[in-house]
Amino acid sequence: MTQWKQIQQLENRLLEHVDYLYDDNFPMDIRQGLSSWIESQDWEIAANDESMAAVLFTNLLSQLDRVRLQEQNFLQRHNMKIIQQQLQVKYATNPAVMARVISTCLREERRILSSACMQEQGPLEKSLQN
Amino acid sequence: MTQWKQIQQLENRLLEHVDYLYDDNFPMDIRQGLSSWIESQDWEIAANDESMAAVLFTNLLSQLDRVRLQEQNFLQRHNMKIIQQQLQVKYATNPAVMARVISTCLREERRILSSACMQEQGPLEKSLQN
Repeated sequence: MTQWKQIQQLENRLLEHVDYLYDDNFPMDIRQGLSSWIESQDWEIAANDESMAAVLFTNLLSQLDRVRLQEQNFLQRHNMKIIQQQLQVKYATNPAVMARVISTCLREERRILSSACMQEQGPLEKSLQN
Repeated sequence: MTQWKQIQQLENRLLEHVDYLYDDNFPMDIRQGLSSWIESQDWEIAANDESMAAVLFTNLLSQLDRVRLQEQNFLQRHNMKIIQQQLQVKYATNPAVMARVISTCLREERRILSSACMQEQGPLEKSLQN
């Protein structure tokens, strides 16, 4: 199961924290549309390696092209095009910034997931002690 | 059938013209999510009437609140929240500008629809003449 699928199963209170992670700097549509691909790249290294960040930026745009061309829904296709244009403007000359944003989002998601996991384990541990 | 439903049935070549009408000034998500309500308001008059524009702006935000609260999908709910924030920043102090943008979009849609209709009638008229 992708990290993103796990995130979506969180209760609303924790989903609100995830909500705040995403804005124009890294639209949630991309996080959802390319969830597996995004999670299989090393954004943390790319955040400090301009050339690797540039490759990942180009690959991200190609992935979005692929998804957009397959998309049947007019609204989704339109939104995908707008997002691609926004990313070009924001990150074409500084892809490492994008890598840093994505890396931070993924790390924060893991933090939220582990805090949810610990909250679940709490009552379990208590019941084991009894 | 709403104007928006008719738009979505256009061929891709004409849909491209519609695509260019929508951006951050009037996100297509709103056009689709509130299609009936939007089409039943008089944006043309509001574009030149600040107080009417202010009422329509408030009502639009209420409509978006209603849709967002009913929305089950996390991504859609998140996008709706972002759009509401963007609209607040853009139009809270100048709602007539928003009315003008929406009015223009609706008029351009009608122009595209009537050009599609005329193109369809073309071959029909020809065949009637033969």
